[in-house]
Amino acid sequence: MNNDQRKLAEGALFTDLYQLTMAQVYFRLGIHEKTAQFDYFFRSYPDYGLHQAGYCINAGLEWLLDWMRDSFFDEPSIAYLRSLKNASGSRFFTEDFLSYINRQSVITGITLNAIPEGRVVHPYIPLAFVHGPLLFAQLIESSLLNHLNYQTLIATKAARIYEAGMRQMMLEFGLRRAQDRAASAGARAAIIGGAAGSSNVGASAVLGFSPSGTHAHSMIQAIVALGGSELEAFQAYADSYPDNCVLLVDTFDSLESGIPNAIKVFEKLKQKGHQPIGIRLDSGDLAFLSIQAARMLDKAGFPDTTIVLSNQMDELVIWQIITQIKDEASRYGVDPDKLLKRLAYGVGTRMITSSIDPALDGVYKLVAIQENSHWIPAIKISENPEKTINPGHKHLWRIYDQREKAIADVMSTAEEDLCQESTLQLYHPTDPSKHRVLESSGISKIELLPIEIITKGSINYSPPSLDSIREQRQMDLDKLYPGVKRIVNPHHYHVSLTEKLWKLKRDLTLEYQDGERGTD
Amino acid sequence: MNNDQRKLAEGALFTDLYQLTMAQVYFRLGIHEKTAQFDYFFRSYPDYGLHQAGYCINAGLEWLLDWMRDSFFDEPSIAYLRSLKNASGSRFFTEDFLSYINRQSVITGITLNAIPEGRVVHPYIPLAFVHGPLLFAQLIESSLLNHLNYQTLIATKAARIYEAGMRQMMLEFGLRRAQDRAASAGARAAIIGGAAGSSNVGASAVLGFSPSGTHAHSMIQAIVALGGSELEAFQAYADSYPDNCVLLVDTFDSLESGIPNAIKVFEKLKQKGHQPIGIRLDSGDLAFLSIQAARMLDKAGFPDTTIVLSNQMDELVIWQIITQIKDEASRYGVDPDKLLKRLAYGVGTRMITSSIDPALDGVYKLVAIQENSHWIPAIKISENPEKTINPGHKHLWRIYDQREKAIADVMSTAEEDLCQESTLQLYHPTDPSKHRVLESSGISKIELLPIEIITKGSINYSPPSLDSIREQRQMDLDKLYPGVKRIVNPHHYHVSLTEKLWKLKRDLTLEYQDGERGTD
Repeated sequence: MNNDQRKLAEGALFTDLYQLTMAQVYFRLGIHEKTAQFDYFFRSYPDYGLHQAGYCINAGLEWLLDWMRDSFFDEPSIAYLRSLKNASGSRFFTEDFLSYINRQSVITGITLNAIPEGRVVHPYIPLAFVHGPLLFAQLIESSLLNHLNYQTLIATKAARIYEAGMRQMMLEFGLRRAQDRAASAGARAAIIGGAAGSSNVGASAVLGFSPSGTHAHSMIQAIVALGGSELEAFQAYADSYPDNCVLLVDTFDSLESGIPNAIKVFEKLKQKGHQPIGIRLDSGDLAFLSIQAARMLDKAGFPDTTIVLSNQMDELVIWQIITQIKDEASRYGVDPDKLLKRLAYGVGTRMITSSIDPALDGVYKLVAIQENSHWIPAIKISENPEKTINPGHKHLWRIYDQREKAIADVMSTAEEDLCQESTLQLYHPTDPSKHRVLESSGISKIELLPIEIITKGSINYSPPSLDSIREQRQMDLDKLYPGVKRIVNPHHYHVSLTEKLWKLKRDLTLEYQDGERGTD
Repeated sequence: MNNDQRKLAEGALFTDLYQLTMAQVYFRLGIHEKTAQFDYFFRSYPDYGLHQAGYCINAGLEWLLDWMRDSFFDEPSIAYLRSLKNASGSRFFTEDFLSYINRQSVITGITLNAIPEGRVVHPYIPLAFVHGPLLFAQLIESSLLNHLNYQTLIATKAARIYEAGMRQMMLEFGLRRAQDRAASAGARAAIIGGAAGSSNVGASAVLGFSPSGTHAHSMIQAIVALGGSELEAFQAYADSYPDNCVLLVDTFDSLESGIPNAIKVFEKLKQKGHQPIGIRLDSGDLAFLSIQAARMLDKAGFPDTTIVLSNQMDELVIWQIITQIKDEASRYGVDPDKLLKRLAYGVGTRMITSSIDPALDGVYKLVAIQENSHWIPAIKISENPEKTINPGHKHLWRIYDQREKAIADVMSTAEEDLCQESTLQLYHPTDPSKHRVLESSGISKIELLPIEIITKGSINYSPPSLDSIREQRQMDLDKLYPGVKRIVNPHHYHVSLTEKLWKLKRDLTLEYQDGERGTD
């Protein structure tokens, strides 16, 4: 795919065919301009097999807005739709329908309220409310899901890894194993989640973050094959980057060759007035090797150098390394707390692909449609009660207790104002037997989460900088109780409906189950 | 990221920083134009937890070539590199180095030999041999890995799913859960692996395949919320697409409402001379429901309609559905073989993300470097013997037995011609105790796998059409023994070294372990 083809493939046509076939049906029925409301939410936290998330970090909104701003039904996309044929050879899309969407932006008439990037989010709470003409509100589904699902997934994984590493420096190294061009969005989401930067040069250029990286084994191998040595290769590297000198020490033998050679080079750098940065370990028992490396570097007079660990890192691997260092370092005369504070982590495949749960199960569901300025809830009765959506036009609140910790996210009808209630009756979204009462005396703050991003087709939102998104993430994480942040078996955060919304959902479910609507 | 930013991010700068830092070191040492050889290979088949692949399908080459053709160090990318600063505030890249790469293509001087797309491939055999100037051969590593790893992963997953479905029609529906823009490359790779098409309109436009799709639950919900019924919604859809009518029947109740309503609409279509295509089931017990649906459609006089199954499909789910239909269909008076031949599969998340193994572990390793027209093998002694590379400039062969089945892939030195040998002594790539002898009498064919794609920086290869890549895949799969293709616990295909290559590897390993080279 060349650059021109990419523009065609990933503009207004970055959608599933059925969005366009439905759009044409709506157009034919004359209901295409009815105002509809769709909610975007996910049903479950990412689950990594032996461990699962207790929170997610919301991300992807700014790049979704970039797509929306860039995408309209231009001549090449209309020409392509015009060329599509039915099984019978007749045209799939009629000219009146194509004229209707011709030159239109994909967000024609759309209003979007959404939770900002960097915020902690939970299952079932809508991260985005879309309302606008049925045709366009439906059309944007596929791309909205594509953009928000992935970055939220990766920001979440990155936050877990960053927290597991005790908020030490963590870098994104995943370009080579990323799923194709997800490398770019993945670098951004990793930075939102906690990475200090990325090795990906192009993504860094666009994001305004300095790219990270030093050298690979191949540099040593090339210089050695041409008659040089590991020491000479290190020295050549230090000569080029005297103030950015991180040396990869495991090409031959970390303890016998790499670290002693690195120390020799560091000594020369120091003599010339430069501050060596550190070493990188990329194989072997990283806990053991980092203790030995610390001991050797300390002894040689480089106690402030960083030890970067890489090779199949994720939150569990990092947690295990830290645990082992805490248990074993002092046996070798190394202070474990000092060692942990000089560690940094280079994280590749498992962060950028969210191994082993590579998709967030985010969905985009029609919840209501307006008829004569009145919202009619839309509902689908699935065989699985967890899939039954929360109907209607809604508000979304976060409740903090007297210790200023977040204790519940609550959906209400649009008419309710939770700040005015003295007692909140809260219901589990899918299990009616789970019911809870909160007194206002136990509440320090109630916050409305979404903000208006797009108003009737015009984007009136200046996205915050990546730095402030990162601060938001940190603030939100600090307001979670530790149990919710636990890497393995986290405590369940409460997501609830108000009594009024819960009753609306129950009534609608009963109505449909009695066959009163929809079925003939 | 807008379109201009994407061009910057995903052109020549679509690389890891260390490729550029190493390039500058090579430049400084004056070894940047030495001819180097790098191999691209993977070490293990994708592993999906409870089951694993026994083969991979090679894919991604054409889009890698598109990237190579489009990417050079243009003004914006050089300006960005010029702006990068060291910790000390001095420039990271010096002007002489930047002048050297300025306006250069990323494949300056590169020769690429590679295995064509659609071919069955196995661990350790190089899928691509890159040789050319050390600087550029090193630089393209990250992007080459990114492009080839992902499409090979997805073509492999798609082939497994297609084979599990007994080569019935299978469609790619993963855009919404794809990892960001991997949606496009994923659609392509899925088609290479066996999908008949994709719901992704933009990708289909570029690939020249008709996009697939009908309607979602939301169409029914919208029409019902506005006072209509499921039947009316189906009828509206059929009115717009009388010759492409596939109806999604599970919005309310598949057996009680959806299928009876679909049959009513099909009867009207039939009266008007149209051929209804079929129904789609997206929830519930799909094996049971498809038996019941077949029974109802047969009885109503629509025995040729298709039943499309979707919802969290993968190769195991499909295999299980087929097994259950074989066991149970006749009990309901339905012929299982006929039913299986009317099934089609819509496959989303698990194919396009290769859940639950979302990355192929492909690597790109320096194997040799030329000095005075003589190749010097480069080798890295890892603590893990599986990671020790196969050194030198190599050939790559596939051997077929007298039944014309592929029985081994063999790497040899560049000097060997396996067709001239009467007896082949084959060695396991990592375990020297595994050794095998093949007599030429048992061999029907020996095939050289790679072909020349790029010669000294110029791409002289016309990529085959997707259709012929798909045919190649089918031919190669038909030449595997069934045990290798088994979904669970497949038989191991043999990948071997010739005696000469094995001895070279052993000698080099010993040489390094004795500390004769590289370490001081």
